[in-house]
Amino acid sequence: MLGLPKGSLEESTKSLFAKAGWKITTSSRSYKPSINDPELDGRFIRAQEVSRYVEHGFFDCGLTGYDWIQENGSDVVEVCDLVYSRASVLKSRWVLCVPEASDITKPEQLAGKRVATELVGTVKRYFEKKGVSVDVEFSWGATEVKVPDLVDAIVDITETGNSIRANKLRIIDTLLETNTKLIANKASWANPAKRKKIETIALLLRGALEAESKVGLKMNLPRTALDGVVKALPSLRNPTISQLSNVEWVALETIIDENVAREIIPQLKELGAEGIVEYPLNKVVY
Amino acid sequence: MLGLPKGSLEESTKSLFAKAGWKITTSSRSYKPSINDPELDGRFIRAQEVSRYVEHGFFDCGLTGYDWIQENGSDVVEVCDLVYSRASVLKSRWVLCVPEASDITKPEQLAGKRVATELVGTVKRYFEKKGVSVDVEFSWGATEVKVPDLVDAIVDITETGNSIRANKLRIIDTLLETNTKLIANKASWANPAKRKKIETIALLLRGALEAESKVGLKMNLPRTALDGVVKALPSLRNPTISQLSNVEWVALETIIDENVAREIIPQLKELGAEGIVEYPLNKVVY
Amino acid sequence: MLGLPKGSLEESTKSLFAKAGWKITTSSRSYKPSINDPELDGRFIRAQEVSRYVEHGFFDCGLTGYDWIQENGSDVVEVCDLVYSRASVLKSRWVLCVPEASDITKPEQLAGKRVATELVGTVKRYFEKKGVSVDVEFSWGATEVKVPDLVDAIVDITETGNSIRANKLRIIDTLLETNTKLIANKASWANPAKRKKIETIALLLRGALEAESKVGLKMNLPRTALDGVVKALPSLRNPTISQLSNVEWVALETIIDENVAREIIPQLKELGAEGIVEYPLNKVVY
Amino acid sequence: MLGLPKGSLEESTKSLFAKAGWKITTSSRSYKPSINDPELDGRFIRAQEVSRYVEHGFFDCGLTGYDWIQENGSDVVEVCDLVYSRASVLKSRWVLCVPEASDITKPEQLAGKRVATELVGTVKRYFEKKGVSVDVEFSWGATEVKVPDLVDAIVDITETGNSIRANKLRIIDTLLETNTKLIANKASWANPAKRKKIETIALLLRGALEAESKVGLKMNLPRTALDGVVKALPSLRNPTISQLSNVEWVALETIIDENVAREIIPQLKELGAEGIVEYPLNKVVY
Amino acid sequence: MLGLPKGSLEESTKSLFAKAGWKITTSSRSYKPSINDPELDGRFIRAQEVSRYVEHGFFDCGLTGYDWIQENGSDVVEVCDLVYSRASVLKSRWVLCVPEASDITKPEQLAGKRVATELVGTVKRYFEKKGVSVDVEFSWGATEVKVPDLVDAIVDITETGNSIRANKLRIIDTLLETNTKLIANKASWANPAKRKKIETIALLLRGALEAESKVGLKMNLPRTALDGVVKALPSLRNPTISQLSNVEWVALETIIDENVAREIIPQLKELGAEGIVEYPLNKVVY
Amino acid sequence: MLGLPKGSLEESTKSLFAKAGWKITTSSRSYKPSINDPELDGRFIRAQEVSRYVEHGFFDCGLTGYDWIQENGSDVVEVCDLVYSRASVLKSRWVLCVPEASDITKPEQLAGKRVATELVGTVKRYFEKKGVSVDVEFSWGATEVKVPDLVDAIVDITETGNSIRANKLRIIDTLLETNTKLIANKASWANPAKRKKIETIALLLRGALEAESKVGLKMNLPRTALDGVVKALPSLRNPTISQLSNVEWVALETIIDENVAREIIPQLKELGAEGIVEYPLNKVVY
Repeated sequence: MLGLPKGSLEESTKSLFAKAGWKITTSSRSYKPSINDPELDGRFIRAQEVSRYVEHGFFDCGLTGYDWIQENGSDVVEVCDLVYSRASVLKSRWVLCVPEASDITKPEQLAGKRVATELVGTVKRYFEKKGVSVDVEFSWGATEVKVPDLVDAIVDITETGNSIRANKLRIIDTLLETNTKLIANKASWANPAKRKKIETIALLLRGALEAESKVGLKMNLPRTALDGVVKALPSLRNPTISQLSNVEWVALETIIDENVAREIIPQLKELGAEGIVEYPLNKVVY
Repeated sequence: MLGLPKGSLEESTKSLFAKAGWKITTSSRSYKPSINDPELDGRFIRAQEVSRYVEHGFFDCGLTGYDWIQENGSDVVEVCDLVYSRASVLKSRWVLCVPEASDITKPEQLAGKRVATELVGTVKRYFEKKGVSVDVEFSWGATEVKVPDLVDAIVDITETGNSIRANKLRIIDTLLETNTKLIANKASWANPAKRKKIETIALLLRGALEAESKVGLKMNLPRTALDGVVKALPSLRNPTISQLSNVEWVALETIIDENVAREIIPQLKELGAEGIVEYPLNKVVY
Repeated sequence: MLGLPKGSLEESTKSLFAKAGWKITTSSRSYKPSINDPELDGRFIRAQEVSRYVEHGFFDCGLTGYDWIQENGSDVVEVCDLVYSRASVLKSRWVLCVPEASDITKPEQLAGKRVATELVGTVKRYFEKKGVSVDVEFSWGATEVKVPDLVDAIVDITETGNSIRANKLRIIDTLLETNTKLIANKASWANPAKRKKIETIALLLRGALEAESKVGLKMNLPRTALDGVVKALPSLRNPTISQLSNVEWVALETIIDENVAREIIPQLKELGAEGIVEYPLNKVVY
Repeated sequence: MLGLPKGSLEESTKSLFAKAGWKITTSSRSYKPSINDPELDGRFIRAQEVSRYVEHGFFDCGLTGYDWIQENGSDVVEVCDLVYSRASVLKSRWVLCVPEASDITKPEQLAGKRVATELVGTVKRYFEKKGVSVDVEFSWGATEVKVPDLVDAIVDITETGNSIRANKLRIIDTLLETNTKLIANKASWANPAKRKKIETIALLLRGALEAESKVGLKMNLPRTALDGVVKALPSLRNPTISQLSNVEWVALETIIDENVAREIIPQLKELGAEGIVEYPLNKVVY
Repeated sequence: MLGLPKGSLEESTKSLFAKAGWKITTSSRSYKPSINDPELDGRFIRAQEVSRYVEHGFFDCGLTGYDWIQENGSDVVEVCDLVYSRASVLKSRWVLCVPEASDITKPEQLAGKRVATELVGTVKRYFEKKGVSVDVEFSWGATEVKVPDLVDAIVDITETGNSIRANKLRIIDTLLETNTKLIANKASWANPAKRKKIETIALLLRGALEAESKVGLKMNLPRTALDGVVKALPSLRNPTISQLSNVEWVALETIIDENVAREIIPQLKELGAEGIVEYPLNKVVY
Repeated sequence: MLGLPKGSLEESTKSLFAKAGWKITTSSRSYKPSINDPELDGRFIRAQEVSRYVEHGFFDCGLTGYDWIQENGSDVVEVCDLVYSRASVLKSRWVLCVPEASDITKPEQLAGKRVATELVGTVKRYFEKKGVSVDVEFSWGATEVKVPDLVDAIVDITETGNSIRANKLRIIDTLLETNTKLIANKASWANPAKRKKIETIALLLRGALEAESKVGLKMNLPRTALDGVVKALPSLRNPTISQLSNVEWVALETIIDENVAREIIPQLKELGAEGIVEYPLNKVVY
């Protein structure tokens, strides 16, 4: 039984599993998806709750954020990281923010004030460790608009900081970095058959994620240019080189980062490559 | 400053205020609406939090459900009830449910089990009063699908019981009846100018709500039929009767329940009424 | 039990019943609506099939088109006409069409040819009466695009003739005029209690339809202008005239066609009317 | 032939005509609407061009903004103002804006610089009058984002100033105030039959606009309270007072501003009014 | 001329042809698409009617379900099967259903009762063969909600049985299995040029369908591991093995089922494969 | 700084850059996109204005149509053509049109008449060159519906001529052929670093465009069939042929036009090819 995160991660999770080879089909209003693998059964529940039910054992494994594993204090196995978005290499962060115009620059200055957050437990532990007495309120949403009208500070999640700036807030501390993780129930992990299945899921999800930022590249090269190309372009790691019928030419094929492709293709052309072709990938497993 | 409930009640709240005479305009992603009354400023926040910030004094008054006033234990003035929906005269209820197929019929049988709900405080107090030890978990949503997989019972809100039945649940107790209320901060209520404004808001919101289930009805009657009509149809309360130029006829005008109109109009016609006209209303204040 | 037409008439039917005083609520994918009248239960089925199940007795009454009553040859009571749309006073017609460019001008010229239609029975009877042998095919939809590629002629429904012209077709005969009707099962109609309920539904649906093209109009008039107004404007039928406190003025109130209002208001102003007010109506029952 | 503004005013124009008594039906992609009045034919074209074709005589009359009548220098009759929106009583303004952070405070400081606008002719004449030499560029849209990157200043339209502030601009002058007008071709206006029709349109459009911000109000009053009410509430202008059967009570009916209703209803109740009812209006013609 | 199925299969048919190399572009409301192949002209008509017009000869070939070929009794060539959906390997079935709670378990028990279906001819023949006298009614849609209110049993189509269960029905027999087929007119099939074109269409549509459930897989292998891999993984059929420059390694490339990929990739990694890459395919033709 | 065309080309431009390797992310209402390349900054502005701001130097390079470069008379470097759409190989054309039913067949016959167009400068120059005096009006949009009501002729853009025919117009001359171009500011082009970056953009955009109409094709062939295949199929240009382990077979791989694939695949099969696989491409650089 697999715990899947409902809500903002739902579509990208289904898309990631599809690339990994599992088609997850949901009907509207249902939390029981169908999966085209008789060995797998799944449920969509809120990301905040996945780790709780993995720990209780209803799920053998599940996907959720590190933040909620921490907030819930769940005793689970963290199998692997799955950083979904390729838009940025930054992890998401839970940050303590005050109004831009405020004088406050340190957490200590919030003593006796009110702080709103969705991550109440984590925030309370943070201030307790610092010995600062603060009134931490659970926020049901739209936390970023609550300062300064309703509370003095907030702890909210941000990826790029854009929404922080748009709401005229200033970050004074980072409490937690987080990303999606595949987690497993401890007993399920100790069961060899279940563990093997969980590891297969991990391998293929990572292979699908890897492929999102990678492309295949192939070209023909004069044999004489081969050394120059390989030396000049260290990012062409482990190229597969095969002899063409015409003995003066070789075919070179490799996998590279999509971002690198736009720099390397002009160079390859200058170095004598012909018929350069870039093609998309489904999965990359080293 | 007025606290308005964001989310499922947002559109109907704006529509109710429009009928009452205040146009509330929101831009997307903003929680600060503009209101066409220089004396009124408002904020949209989650219904769950309105009573907290009315009690703290940021809002002078606000609209929220009785359930969340109770859950938050907020010390506020309850100015008036505003039962929004005319579809039903039932109030919403928070009910304790178990699977249809379960043997459990009384709360006491849940001792030692897990119950999920959004109303954690209220549910904990309910079981404490009964002396039953239960593990109450906060549910982030979709509570109704959690039994029997994730928990043993739930406490959820329902208006008609349809979603309860659709999820194959059975109600074993009702914890709370609830409806929307206009509430006020205690200090604001003690301030005569603020109280007058809050009372005006209450009067007009109730007048607008009243008008939703009422229609105006007018007709011409032969003077001789008047007594028969008034006797036969007690629901035509306090009709306004005015003399027409033709002395043998009178005009009768009144306000009735829309549901009554469909029964009374055929009777009126039989009793001799002519030119029966039904028209819509914006507000009704007795 | 009431049969309601699913599909293109569904929304306007619900809206008409709402104006008549019954709120019909449907959930998606359900054919069992809820109606806020304990005496009424309803089902939404295709308009083509309503008369069949009224005749069989599953429905006591229902709404459907005259065309499908005829096509099915259903033995039912036709209670009243309900011409829904106020956009046009034309009834819909089933017309026999050939390509604009065709030489055919009379049904007899179609002997030995193929005709497509949704109304197979009616069209077969039409050609049999004329003694013309034609191959009539059932069309599953989009009948208007089938000539001349797939068949030689079609019989299709049209309100304004726009779609006929847009598809470059020419009408050569009209087989049937049709509009929505309220029909009743014969046994139900013979039952006094059921008949009374069906008549009430008929009265109020007609009252609501009537109100869609009518408006209320009221104004104040100098007593001296009254005769001139009433003479000059015969469409102000049966005005209600009441004495105002100021004895030189009377209040005149009446119900008129919305289309007439735009012509009569300028005239009223010229004749001395003041404070002319037009207001919307829910129902009009003469 | 009537010229109607396509684009942002299209829906509100159709809705205004509907309230005035004319149903304008457009099919997608067509600029020829159908109107339920055999005397009226219309075309939807861009508001910027309406006055040009009214002047040329293709249209007898049309609706467009004062700004574009001026920009085109069209020689037409301005029949009446039609301020559409009731949300605000401000007219729209074309304003000269510079970046908030700029040192420029007077138009004269823009000598030698570039200004972007949709209203090129008007802006050129404005700077010529001031004797300031400026490079005025036609802007194809999104003018407000062009400063400071692409040009030094802009002239753009604004109703509330919100978009100006949101783009961090500062207004340094207002060139023009504008609102929608009904305009007529000079020859059509000189033709009595056409002028009469245009005046009817003007009367009813204004009646419909007037009704948008008005409501009908009626109530019963003890005869003894009547004077007090009329004195205390001067905004109850020209009430219609009629005697009820019960000689100690009168019925009072009047038309008031919707915004006034929310203030006056509580006062009326205090003064002894009963059965206060507010109802919506379609048209108000004094 | 090619007959294409309008309605539920329309989008997937266009998508399948696009993968096969033909871009079919439809404008809304048109049944004549444009196809980027001067040798092909097509029409979209209801799937129910395609076989009729292939038989008549208007279409040379067309796509439709086996069910409607049978229902229409069309005399056509069945060129090939095209099972569109890869979600399931089940064909769709037309099944005879009664209410879950009914006592009926065999078709014979329906003697004298009413059965609704869209497939009237097929159902009548089915009961005639069994010698059971049943009243078979044409159903215009929503057949699954008609039992038990309107009829005693239905014959409806289902892929997974989900809608059957959701409507609380029980299957008592299967009348027909069906899937999409490419069919041809007999005369067109006898014409060598037309037959060649139809066979090309068949080849490429099947190649595109095949590719939907297949992926390309390539990897590098130590020469020593090659035999082990090929023996252990028989599903790696006909791999293309090529020598790399480094003589101890070979490149292995093959096409496999997407569903197999998720099982085989972990095994390949264990057996020593490196740089395993999976990539998407447009067409696969063996 | 890169100028990007807002509006109808916006989505396809973003999609083209994505294929070329740059992810352009826009938030709604913003004209400043973010691009995942620290060396590139961009702005979205109307295509009509791009060349103006490339010439002024705000942009180093930009994408816009040849038509607007001409209309603006911008002095810029035309780096390369980018014909976006693969649906047609026709370039778009600006054509002079009159009503189908008009007698006019030559531009000279328009002397003294009115012509509407968005491309006022170009059209004026066209008629001046011919010595024909015409009143050229700027059209704010929907130019094609303006004849014959509002003007006598129009100059409008068309790709396939469909909208011309749909509006019952006839083309009497072509003024200009146009397609999207990458253009550069003269000073930026003279700067070696900037020029290198612009050339890289050009190379990759063209590689991405090329790949849209190409596919990769690979198959295994008996060595004996190789010559036949290469001779029979000249469109298989520059195939990469590699030896398989089985010495009697070779692998053949090449890039071909997608339109050619549907013809060549059946031929390849006949000639003995096995395991024919077609796969999609991201970029093709010869």
